[in-house]
Amino acid sequence: MTSFDPENYSPDHFAYAFADKVATITLNRPERKNPLTFESYAELRDLFRALRYADKVKAVVIAGAGGNFCSGGDVHEIIGPLTKMDMPGLLAFTRMTGDLVKAMRSCPQPIIAAVNGVCAGAGAILAMASDIRYAAHDAKTAFLFTRVGLAGADMGACAILPRIIGHGRAAELLYSGRSFSAEEGERWGFFNRLCATDALLGDATDFAQNLSDGPSFAHGMTKNQLDMEWAMPLDTAIEAEAQAQAICMQTRDFERAYHAFVAKQRPQFEGN
Amino acid sequence: MTSFDPENYSPDHFAYAFADKVATITLNRPERKNPLTFESYAELRDLFRALRYADKVKAVVIAGAGGNFCSGGDVHEIIGPLTKMDMPGLLAFTRMTGDLVKAMRSCPQPIIAAVNGVCAGAGAILAMASDIRYAAHDAKTAFLFTRVGLAGADMGACAILPRIIGHGRAAELLYSGRSFSAEEGERWGFFNRLCATDALLGDATDFAQNLSDGPSFAHGMTKNQLDMEWAMPLDTAIEAEAQAQAICMQTRDFERAYHAFVAKQRPQFEGN
Amino acid sequence: MTSFDPENYSPDHFAYAFADKVATITLNRPERKNPLTFESYAELRDLFRALRYADKVKAVVIAGAGGNFCSGGDVHEIIGPLTKMDMPGLLAFTRMTGDLVKAMRSCPQPIIAAVNGVCAGAGAILAMASDIRYAAHDAKTAFLFTRVGLAGADMGACAILPRIIGHGRAAELLYSGRSFSAEEGERWGFFNRLCATDALLGDATDFAQNLSDGPSFAHGMTKNQLDMEWAMPLDTAIEAEAQAQAICMQTRDFERAYHAFVAKQRPQFEGN
Repeated sequence: MTSFDPENYSPDHFAYAFADKVATITLNRPERKNPLTFESYAELRDLFRALRYADKVKAVVIAGAGGNFCSGGDVHEIIGPLTKMDMPGLLAFTRMTGDLVKAMRSCPQPIIAAVNGVCAGAGAILAMASDIRYAAHDAKTAFLFTRVGLAGADMGACAILPRIIGHGRAAELLYSGRSFSAEEGERWGFFNRLCATDALLGDATDFAQNLSDGPSFAHGMTKNQLDMEWAMPLDTAIEAEAQAQAICMQTRDFERAYHAFVAKQRPQFEGN
Repeated sequence: MTSFDPENYSPDHFAYAFADKVATITLNRPERKNPLTFESYAELRDLFRALRYADKVKAVVIAGAGGNFCSGGDVHEIIGPLTKMDMPGLLAFTRMTGDLVKAMRSCPQPIIAAVNGVCAGAGAILAMASDIRYAAHDAKTAFLFTRVGLAGADMGACAILPRIIGHGRAAELLYSGRSFSAEEGERWGFFNRLCATDALLGDATDFAQNLSDGPSFAHGMTKNQLDMEWAMPLDTAIEAEAQAQAICMQTRDFERAYHAFVAKQRPQFEGN
Repeated sequence: MTSFDPENYSPDHFAYAFADKVATITLNRPERKNPLTFESYAELRDLFRALRYADKVKAVVIAGAGGNFCSGGDVHEIIGPLTKMDMPGLLAFTRMTGDLVKAMRSCPQPIIAAVNGVCAGAGAILAMASDIRYAAHDAKTAFLFTRVGLAGADMGACAILPRIIGHGRAAELLYSGRSFSAEEGERWGFFNRLCATDALLGDATDFAQNLSDGPSFAHGMTKNQLDMEWAMPLDTAIEAEAQAQAICMQTRDFERAYHAFVAKQRPQFEGN
């Protein structure tokens, strides 16, 4: 993927656009509420892996077409075949889906999920693995793995969801598979903002644009540290941030901000 | 405890019932608001250890008799003797109470606490160490160890409570020992649901029943992963879930769910 | 600092008072909204390090003079010089500021932040690194490092803030640098209590006084365990608490509480 060109990338299994430093991924099989397939999982994983080195892309928006975010793994195209697979095949699959989450977390760009309508199963995971989540009022989100006989332990949910909304709420959602409303999600800290349905994508894109115009090298360091310090002892985490921030203090964006402040201007960040 | 028989188990220090795959534990010294004693701690620990291997039990409800959940360690029967004990004796006691929490966390059954009235000290710990907490509106919960001159560090509270309600709120409760209302607890994510007092036990039992009718092997894996990933680096946790979910994909419940979906029926899970 | 005397301590870069076992630190350059300088960072670090051994001090209040808490690192006195520093100098600075947070966390006294007006940058960190946060309704808090071109990874923010308010909310604040209101902060668990502006310092001091009159040795153990168990596996944390609480059970405060209870009196704790 060294040849990844964000301006001319054209995926086979979802829609993609790139404008003003923001890449927008749109899951677009709206007639089925945008389910994931083996192919779309793999292509999303490859895209996020390529974004790790894509300097021109400063933020990512992920959305769904046709009024829904994502209905998760397709029952016919994924669940059916999985019921016939042997263990090496199953583990290859669960590792591939886990690799998608790892790739979303290890690219430096903040990812903003724009969630509306159905957001279920692996769709809920995509939202959870994003950095920021905006929701339309009609969003219905469900970690519904238990409904298909599986554990809530899917693609990192038992680790990540409790850190976002607390262990008690996460346990209830993962055991029951029940859906929660946009309002519940905002109250619990899952959603960062509720939007009117027709403003959702615009609001999410505005936020992504805002971050793109900011000190994007530093944003990448923020993202890196939020994950790297996940299970560090507290003093170790503080030392890790001393090092991370010292690196950021040698960027030109830090100088730009200082000079702009002295000149009473808005800083123009360039991400270096 | 290899001879543990959930249908014929008859404890000495609390009430117990078993019906439809759900075990119900009722602390029942209502005239003293259901305090714990050396004997009841040990017997609870032994029961939860036995439940680890009790395949017929799919969920547990824990409740209190007579309008209160549990007033914690009995002042006369526990605190008095402790003030006279030497260090090996004290450590044997704190390890026994810690072992109760470890046993609650290491059995595969989701535990639903039905909390009303007084829920204090070790009683609050029993609620905290459960997976799901339902509360009546009159529940008053207090981690009141500080009121008897002790640390908030009791039976895992400094580790677990911050993960449920956040570090700032947990710190206040553990330093001050103050009680909080059912409404506060729900707002903070400690309680999953508020119930009318006379509906509390029924609602908690319904939820337990619901989980029991679900894919209980997978529920046990969810519980296991929620705890096992507690302090794992993020990428390690994602790999752990890839393995855990691949295991669940070889259960018959996963197949049952798929076939039911295709046949437009409700799946009948059997926990294997 | 072995000669630290809390009754006669007189710092150069902030105000300090000591009364009834409570030390009060007041950042007091109100004409600039109480910014931090190289000197005040170092002096605060040294004070909190000395407090680790200051038995007479049982709680700390930290506040700002003149209607604001703290505007963070001074642009002219800190940010300007940093833009000209080499890497060893930068790392020495970020390690010094990190050492302030480490010192706040490793002294045994609970720290209560009284936050009003502007609470920004390193000021927000001081509040975050405290144990308890009270806010006036006019408090505006911002982790605004991104506004000066830096990462949100500053002085432990990527580790600590998510544990207080959840990962999703922390990510938004650290990426955007936006300020949040006192009401938002209370709703999210950042602030423990909202106070009338003119009652803020009194309310925070009352709470500190209350803790000082409590079992302060045990409070120090609570603080220690909250941090020490940060990244421990769950079973390890439970064992750590068995040991910590057994230690507390050999304090005289534990006996005092028991005898007071039997005599139907209020216990008089002495912190030993």
